[in-house]
Amino acid sequence: MKIEDFAKEAKTASVLLAATGTDVRNRALAAVAKALTAGKDEILAANRKDLERSEKERIADPLLKRLKFDDAKIADVIAGIETLIGLPDPVGETLAATELDKGLELYKVSCPIGVVGIIFESRPDALVQISTLCLKSGNSVLLKGGSEALETNRVLAETIRRATENAGIPGGWLHLLETRTEVVEMLKLEGYIDLIIPRGSNEFVRYIIDNSNIPVLGHAEGICHCYIDRSADIAMAVPIVVDSKTQYVAVCNAVETLLVHKDAARAFLPVAKESLESKNVELLGCERTRSIIDVSPATEEDWKTEYLDYRLSVRVVDTLEEAITHINTYGSGHTDAIVAEDRAAAMKFMALVDSADVFWNCSTRFSDGYRYGLGAEVGISTNKIHARGPVGLEGLVIYKYLLMGHGQIVADYAGGKKKFGHRKINRHFPI
Amino acid sequence: MKIEDFAKEAKTASVLLAATGTDVRNRALAAVAKALTAGKDEILAANRKDLERSEKERIADPLLKRLKFDDAKIADVIAGIETLIGLPDPVGETLAATELDKGLELYKVSCPIGVVGIIFESRPDALVQISTLCLKSGNSVLLKGGSEALETNRVLAETIRRATENAGIPGGWLHLLETRTEVVEMLKLEGYIDLIIPRGSNEFVRYIIDNSNIPVLGHAEGICHCYIDRSADIAMAVPIVVDSKTQYVAVCNAVETLLVHKDAARAFLPVAKESLESKNVELLGCERTRSIIDVSPATEEDWKTEYLDYRLSVRVVDTLEEAITHINTYGSGHTDAIVAEDRAAAMKFMALVDSADVFWNCSTRFSDGYRYGLGAEVGISTNKIHARGPVGLEGLVIYKYLLMGHGQIVADYAGGKKKFGHRKINRHFPI
Repeated sequence: MKIEDFAKEAKTASVLLAATGTDVRNRALAAVAKALTAGKDEILAANRKDLERSEKERIADPLLKRLKFDDAKIADVIAGIETLIGLPDPVGETLAATELDKGLELYKVSCPIGVVGIIFESRPDALVQISTLCLKSGNSVLLKGGSEALETNRVLAETIRRATENAGIPGGWLHLLETRTEVVEMLKLEGYIDLIIPRGSNEFVRYIIDNSNIPVLGHAEGICHCYIDRSADIAMAVPIVVDSKTQYVAVCNAVETLLVHKDAARAFLPVAKESLESKNVELLGCERTRSIIDVSPATEEDWKTEYLDYRLSVRVVDTLEEAITHINTYGSGHTDAIVAEDRAAAMKFMALVDSADVFWNCSTRFSDGYRYGLGAEVGISTNKIHARGPVGLEGLVIYKYLLMGHGQIVADYAGGKKKFGHRKINRHFPI
Repeated sequence: MKIEDFAKEAKTASVLLAATGTDVRNRALAAVAKALTAGKDEILAANRKDLERSEKERIADPLLKRLKFDDAKIADVIAGIETLIGLPDPVGETLAATELDKGLELYKVSCPIGVVGIIFESRPDALVQISTLCLKSGNSVLLKGGSEALETNRVLAETIRRATENAGIPGGWLHLLETRTEVVEMLKLEGYIDLIIPRGSNEFVRYIIDNSNIPVLGHAEGICHCYIDRSADIAMAVPIVVDSKTQYVAVCNAVETLLVHKDAARAFLPVAKESLESKNVELLGCERTRSIIDVSPATEEDWKTEYLDYRLSVRVVDTLEEAITHINTYGSGHTDAIVAEDRAAAMKFMALVDSADVFWNCSTRFSDGYRYGLGAEVGISTNKIHARGPVGLEGLVIYKYLLMGHGQIVADYAGGKKKFGHRKINRHFPI
């Protein structure tokens, strides 16, 4: 079958899927959990094939670790599905209701987006998480995982497809893509696919945006900042910076540039250097930084670089405003934090930094769907429309307007025979 | 100045504009209303130049009528501004608040999108409406109006710019583009422009989508349907179809295809034909339609055509499901209506038709921001993300997450030393 046929099938299924009740989708989720348990041996056998092939291909250890799908990982994804079943249904919610006139009622009701294309990394658990998020929110999905996990992904996708279709979910709602060529084909199918969510490297996300007219939800990069204000409590600032940099260096919400107010620099920088270097962080500084601590020079290029590594660029600024301008110029609109005792400075920072997540006196690493309590995370977005920051199920729904009348026509209102009342009503659809 | 410089200025201004209070933006709106009254003579003189030039160029009468900006139009836009001042501020609303843990509070707060590029038709009143909507919602704007209205638009943009900047709105928040080349340049500026709203022909909107990586809000076309169910009250159905087709033929929410259940066709079609032809509507029908009423043949091409004219294609269908499939296949996801007495049929139609606006027993012409009571309309969207259907001020805002802590770091939670509480709180930001 061609990708276009997959997408057509997914589109047709999406219309029926959008009309399924909460109970049908939750029962299908329960069936997936059951099928994963029942199919464990088959899944683990497929995963062993992937691991053996990847070992032969001398794939790096951290990647092998992420590729591994064992009893513990299966237990984790099943626990995830159970949490998902317990979350409120994002579909069918009445967001607003207005009586336009007597007997003419307008309802704004949440509904699935339709067909979502998701491209994700090599963890097979991501396939389960993503497909169940789409199922909960009533969306069809075209999935493309990492090629290292091909055998595991095939078995997982087939297990989920069979379990859900047996549980009354329309056939064709889920398809697995296996090659890059198929992804390239998918990017052209704007008539069938409503949203692409790419998870992966900066270059990869950039490629998707540049090569598709389909809307994209996600982030290309995470150039995050910590700014240490002149009013900062240094004993608080140091652990925040260390955590923001080192708690997990390879993620988008790790800090890449440290900005320090000139009045705090002399007291803060030597202590920060000691703590960061004890965690093996290499510092690169501007001239003023280097007049206080002995570090390598940072260049303009460093302000634009997402290291994703034990490296941190440091710049001394004259004012809060200079820090804000630096962040809005070089940042990626992801997550930026201020450490300050001065409430007015913090409020100004939160108002003027144009990022999805702006923090005061805490680590940048908190910007995450699980930590935010969203229950489930679709991804992190630096978009300025639809959904921004960590995105939960609400990022997979939109709404439609439903208007119910008794024969009303516009000519009567345009001609002045009738008048609109526009009275807010407190009822849910369907009434 | 180059368009890129305009866009840079607009971006810088947008950050400051996002931080202005409701009162500042409302005072600036009042200043615009005052300046339009004070500058009336200058505006009318500029408009006379546009009208004279357009008359010489033998522009069609309806266009000339829309181009004309007189005392009545000025009074209208001023009344519009006064309504806008009275609307709730879409910016700074706390959409959700969660205590992640003691002393670690997360606020999801609505904020402007940033910089919006809007391309609109020849009515000079559209310039005033659009720029004041952007001002109310705290967005910078790059505007491009119809070239026929160039002189009027120049004076209007300059009047608004001067009045708002004197009222404390950051300079550079509004720029007027004057040529198509400038629009083409704007489409490339994804680093500075966050959203494009094109209003105009199908081909034009298509061109914008195909030639920009910036998200686009709007609709390319409006192929709207009325479906007459077997259970329809024919006395109700006829005026609904006549209104949907003829109340204003040149708009996106006018009906283009009529679908009729085979059991209703014999009773409905002859009466509908008489009423529609008395309004000069030309009918084109499928074979089964033509076996009942004498009309020209409709081809496959007709189901895909937005006439925007006194023409209507007609198809007889066997079932409700066939009508729904026709709409989801040929429609543009704009507005579709069912006429039915059978509640179950109507509910099925509303659940399965994948359009922004789905109506039961009323005219398709109701899908409009004013009629919906949104107060002000940015445009009508057939997007499946961000905003769908008639879009009010809420389509011009997004949100940011603000997290306020007291030195919290993620290592303490990852290591099990601390636990998240995720308690919903009922407070507004700033606390």
